[in-house]
Amino acid sequence: MDKFNFTLEETDGRARTGLIETPHGNIETPIFMPVGTVGSVKTISPAELTDDIGAQIILGNTYHLHLRPGDEVVAKHGGLAKFNSWNKPTLTDSGGFQVFSLAEMNKITDEGVHFRSHLDGSRLFISPEESIRIQQNIGADIMMAFDECVSLPSERQYVVEAMERTYRWAQRSFDARTRDDQALFGIIQGGVEKDLRKISAEQITSIPFDGFAIGGLSVGEEIPVMYDICSHTTEFMPKDKPRYLMGVGTPQDLLHGISYGVDMFDCVMPTRNARNGLLFTSRGKLHIKRKEWELSDAPVDANCNCYTCRNFSRGYLRHLWKAGEYLGMRLNSLHNLHFYLSLVKRARNAIKLGVYNNFMKETLEEMSVGGE
Amino acid sequence: MDKFNFTLEETDGRARTGLIETPHGNIETPIFMPVGTVGSVKTISPAELTDDIGAQIILGNTYHLHLRPGDEVVAKHGGLAKFNSWNKPTLTDSGGFQVFSLAEMNKITDEGVHFRSHLDGSRLFISPEESIRIQQNIGADIMMAFDECVSLPSERQYVVEAMERTYRWAQRSFDARTRDDQALFGIIQGGVEKDLRKISAEQITSIPFDGFAIGGLSVGEEIPVMYDICSHTTEFMPKDKPRYLMGVGTPQDLLHGISYGVDMFDCVMPTRNARNGLLFTSRGKLHIKRKEWELSDAPVDANCNCYTCRNFSRGYLRHLWKAGEYLGMRLNSLHNLHFYLSLVKRARNAIKLGVYNNFMKETLEEMSVGGE
Repeated sequence: MDKFNFTLEETDGRARTGLIETPHGNIETPIFMPVGTVGSVKTISPAELTDDIGAQIILGNTYHLHLRPGDEVVAKHGGLAKFNSWNKPTLTDSGGFQVFSLAEMNKITDEGVHFRSHLDGSRLFISPEESIRIQQNIGADIMMAFDECVSLPSERQYVVEAMERTYRWAQRSFDARTRDDQALFGIIQGGVEKDLRKISAEQITSIPFDGFAIGGLSVGEEIPVMYDICSHTTEFMPKDKPRYLMGVGTPQDLLHGISYGVDMFDCVMPTRNARNGLLFTSRGKLHIKRKEWELSDAPVDANCNCYTCRNFSRGYLRHLWKAGEYLGMRLNSLHNLHFYLSLVKRARNAIKLGVYNNFMKETLEEMSVGGE
Repeated sequence: MDKFNFTLEETDGRARTGLIETPHGNIETPIFMPVGTVGSVKTISPAELTDDIGAQIILGNTYHLHLRPGDEVVAKHGGLAKFNSWNKPTLTDSGGFQVFSLAEMNKITDEGVHFRSHLDGSRLFISPEESIRIQQNIGADIMMAFDECVSLPSERQYVVEAMERTYRWAQRSFDARTRDDQALFGIIQGGVEKDLRKISAEQITSIPFDGFAIGGLSVGEEIPVMYDICSHTTEFMPKDKPRYLMGVGTPQDLLHGISYGVDMFDCVMPTRNARNGLLFTSRGKLHIKRKEWELSDAPVDANCNCYTCRNFSRGYLRHLWKAGEYLGMRLNSLHNLHFYLSLVKRARNAIKLGVYNNFMKETLEEMSVGGE
C-alpha cells in the first residue's frame, strides 16, 4: 500500500516518535485516537477535534457503522472521513471486539461469527472477508484484520485456539483486501501468556501488514500484568511499522505503553468518563459532581488551556452536570480529549529531547497527587 | 435605570429598528433571544452563540435557576452572564410562566403563588417581591415583572381577575427592585379580549418600566387570533420603549410580530425542535429523520451559511438523529438558532431599507413552499 507510510523518527530508550502518512493526511506519533463509535466523537464537532483538541486521527467502529447507517450508505457518501466532515485520517476496528463483547453471541466457527444485533436482535454474520468488505465500504485510511478477542481470565487451551484462529483470520483478512488506498494492520493475541504472545507476534508479523496491533489487553487482567504483556509483546514487533495498543487506556497506561515503544492508542475512556462527570487533570481525576465545587470559580485544571478550562468554572460545570445539560457532557468531553492529546504531544516532545523517562516519572507522580 | 437605554432608530410602517444598551453590551432590534433554561442554551456553547449564530442576548428561566443551582449560587458566581461565560446581555423571565405551566400548583393568592417544585415536589412560594429578589441574584440585564399568565381559553371573569392581579403585582415588582444596574420590564395581560388588552396596556404602561412585554399569548389560542391581539396591543405601547412578545414563536410569527412593531422575541422552538429533528429552512420545515435523506449530500438549507450547512449533509444529520447521537441535536440546534438570528437580521435590514412589507411577503411565500 504505497499511499501509506511509516517513518520512525527518534527513539529514547524503547520510546519512539514517528510519522504516519495516509491519503487523508499525516499523523505524528505517539498518538491517541478519539473514538467516534457511529461516526461522530460523541458531543464533539470536527472543528473542535482539529482546533481545540488537536486530534490527528479518529476511530470508527465497524460493527456500529455496519448496523447504522450501514456501510453501503457510508460508501455512497464517499467514505467515513467525508461523511462526517472530519476529512482527516480515520481507522476502523475489525468489528470483532464489539461482536464478542456487545452482540448476543450465537456461534464462532472457523468460517466466522454468527451473532445477533444488539439493536434489534437480527441475525448477522461476520467473517474476515466480510469484515474487510465492510471496512472497504467505510473507507478508513487504516483497517484492522478480523481477530478473536478472548476475555480474561480464560483457559490456556481456549487462548491457544483463539490465537491460532486469529492467525488464520489474519491471513484471510490480508487476502481479502482489494482497495489499494487503505492500510491494513494485523492484530496480535495470546492472552496473558508470554509464550503465546511471542508465538502470535511471530505469526502475525510474518504477514506483510502495514502495521501491527496488540489486541486482547485491558479485558479483565490486572494492570501490572497488562503492562508486562504489552512490554513483552512489543519486543517481537518490527521497528519499522506502527504499533497500536488497542482499547487502552488511562493516561497512566498511555505513558507506560509509550515507554514500551507503542505508537498508537484508542479508548472510549476520555469521552465516556466525561459524560459521567469524571475529568482527567494533571493532578489526577476530578469528579465534577462533588458538592465542594458548587462555589468554585477555579477551572478544572489550572495547567490546561482548553476551551473548557479557559472559560468555565468547576462551579458551572458542576451545575451543568447536576442539571443534566448536554453542554456539560460536551465541555467535559472537550477537556478530557484535549488532556489526552496534550499528553501524547508532550510525550512526543520529551522523546525528541531524550528525556522521556524523567517526563513519564514526573507526570505520573503529579497525577498521583489526586485528591480531587 | 440609567445603565439601560433604548433608542428607536428607523421605522417602516409599524415595523421598527432600535438599539438597546445594557451593562453587558448592546442589542440591535428586532432581535430573537435564544432560551438558556438553566443557564445554558441546550447543546450550544457561548462561542457558537457569538461566532456562529450571531446571538446578542440570551434568556434564562428564573424558576429553573432558582431550583438549580439556586439563585444564591449564581449570585456568588458573579451573576448569570459571568457564571455561564456568555459575558453579554441576558434577560430573565419572572418565573411566573413556569410556575403556572410546569410546577404542581397549590394556590394563587394576591400575596403570591404557593406551588411544588417539578423536580422534587418541595413546597415553594413566589411573590412579586420574591421574583425580583431572585432575579436580582441572577443578575440579568433585563428582569421581568411577576405576572399571572392565564391559559386559553378561560372565562372572561378569570381573565379580568388575573389582569388586575398582574397590575398590582407589576407595581409591587417595580417597587421591589433595589439594584440600579438591571432594567425591569412590565408585562401586559388580558387574554384574547381586545378591551382587556387595552386596559392592561394602559395599566402596565402607567408604571415607568424600562420596557414592556406582551404576555399570555401563544398559550392555546388560534394563530390569527394571536396576531390580531398582538397587533392590537402594540397600539397601546409607548414608542420609546422596547416591546417584547414573550414565548413566541415560529419564523412566521416573528415576521408578523415585527410588522406590528415588536422588538424582542424568545422561544424554545428552535432548540426544542432541533433536538426532535425538525429543522427550519428558507423553504419551510424539514424533518431530518425522513428516509429520503439517507443518501442526500445536500445541506439542510442551500441558502444557509451556518457551520452545520457548510459542513454536513442531510444524510449525515439523519444518521446522527437515527443513532441518537448528541452531535446531531447540537448541529440541528446551531442551524435552527442561526436561522432565527439570520431572519431577524434580514428583517432589520429590510426595515432600514424601507422594504419590510415586501421582504415579509416574499419570505413567507418562500417558507410556504415547504414539502420537505
